[in-house]
Amino acid sequence: MTTSYDEPAVPSGGGGLVRYRLDIAYDGTDFCGWARQTAQRSVQGEIEDALATILRLERPPRLTVAGRTDAGVHATGQVAHVDLPAHAEAYRLLRALNGVLANDVRVQRVAIAPAGFDARFSALQRRYEFRVSDAPYGASPLRRRDTMHHDRPLDLGDMQAAAAALVGLHDFRAFCRLRVGATTIRLLLRLSCARDGDIVTVTVEADAFCHSMVRSLVGALIAVGDGRQRPDWPAGLLNADRRSDVVTVAQARGLTLVEVTFPPDEDLAARAESTRATRSLSS
Amino acid sequence: MTTSYDEPAVPSGGGGLVRYRLDIAYDGTDFCGWARQTAQRSVQGEIEDALATILRLERPPRLTVAGRTDAGVHATGQVAHVDLPAHAEAYRLLRALNGVLANDVRVQRVAIAPAGFDARFSALQRRYEFRVSDAPYGASPLRRRDTMHHDRPLDLGDMQAAAAALVGLHDFRAFCRLRVGATTIRLLLRLSCARDGDIVTVTVEADAFCHSMVRSLVGALIAVGDGRQRPDWPAGLLNADRRSDVVTVAQARGLTLVEVTFPPDEDLAARAESTRATRSLSS
Repeated sequence: MTTSYDEPAVPSGGGGLVRYRLDIAYDGTDFCGWARQTAQRSVQGEIEDALATILRLERPPRLTVAGRTDAGVHATGQVAHVDLPAHAEAYRLLRALNGVLANDVRVQRVAIAPAGFDARFSALQRRYEFRVSDAPYGASPLRRRDTMHHDRPLDLGDMQAAAAALVGLHDFRAFCRLRVGATTIRLLLRLSCARDGDIVTVTVEADAFCHSMVRSLVGALIAVGDGRQRPDWPAGLLNADRRSDVVTVAQARGLTLVEVTFPPDEDLAARAESTRATRSLSS
Repeated sequence: MTTSYDEPAVPSGGGGLVRYRLDIAYDGTDFCGWARQTAQRSVQGEIEDALATILRLERPPRLTVAGRTDAGVHATGQVAHVDLPAHAEAYRLLRALNGVLANDVRVQRVAIAPAGFDARFSALQRRYEFRVSDAPYGASPLRRRDTMHHDRPLDLGDMQAAAAALVGLHDFRAFCRLRVGATTIRLLLRLSCARDGDIVTVTVEADAFCHSMVRSLVGALIAVGDGRQRPDWPAGLLNADRRSDVVTVAQARGLTLVEVTFPPDEDLAARAESTRATRSLSS
């Protein structure tokens, strides 16, 4: 989800600016997604505008994010960076931001970023969780905003078998909305399914994802879980030469970005450099 | 919360009627509470009206509930009973009800009630959980509907000490909104506090509660947790002769009824009889 956009990386501390790391959580229900769009409410736009208000900046500063999320997708562990005038004090920023922001988005932590930190390019891994309920009565009311309801029972064993066969380095083109020039080869580190009562949680982890890949993977697993497809079907789509028409993209509401992992501080700059090189080579 | 109302208990199977047990979950945010009120949206009213629509009844049937909840209070484990014409088929009712109801209330299970079952009088225990976050940034967006935010850090150890001293058989008058003729003597079976990250969960269990007792107990524990009161303060209020002015009632949004316990089927009728006798003796 993060590789197909190009954003300029502002150098840390350049021009009297200091780079801050922001840890962010949001309920994506009432947002058009992470990315700022004209005339629609975005997470990026809300936070950038709040920063401009608090710091009395002429123009909103630009946030760079680890995992761009689509409309309706949530986050409990989103990470972004932003370069701000050096006089901004981290704890005051935290209090002020959360005072200005609506309560469906919270900045959970503000800290001066270590040298070489880039929320997008330094990140090692992104982890998502997808919640789907197969209860006959629908999603539990208190979790209905972050749970998809599926009207047929899901077989966990079949889903687990299908998921295991997808882990590894593959061309996930069948599961990606194609962007010109962007690679669809990805190292899928984890794809696992667990059940707790009526809720099946699918956990997906990779260094990066192409667009709509997570929800397509989940959509394929659900098709296996309810018996429409056999457990070996999703792996059979790997290394296809185009997006599959039969893979359904699972509902945004079930998906939450839960964690972004970064290397130790001393490796941040090297990681960012190597990511940039790989991405430009492969795209 | 359940003892100070008098509702007629319709005998099971009387007049061609069959008694059904309904297990119910709701997000209380947009309800005026459980109890039907004129011109306001209540959980009871929504379900009764849905039953009338589905079964084409002239008048809505009357639900009897295990734990009446106030405006804004949630449930994941509410139980009610209702007497319906014998032709109603349980699984069809479940599907039809959830088709008609808005998604902030779900009927999770419909079953013909065992003989002697009364959702209010057969119940042995009610268990509530209260979620409060002391994170500086507020409640997590995806759980903001069922989490209260407290702006000062909470000391778990002090809260636990205060809670332990309240367990047992006491006159909880200081923690109850008084109703004429109703007893405030209660056997508090459990009052415990646990922390998971920024969330402190208070678990409260008793055979029954008087009105606003759970939220007053939590309010007292929060006053201890943030240092406004000492850990021995709440127990010092026990056996007072009136409601305490200094006990704050904690916000409804943090509270969820999570479980109602019933005795084995063969003891249901005896339990209902003994509850009715105790309640009338004591009130």
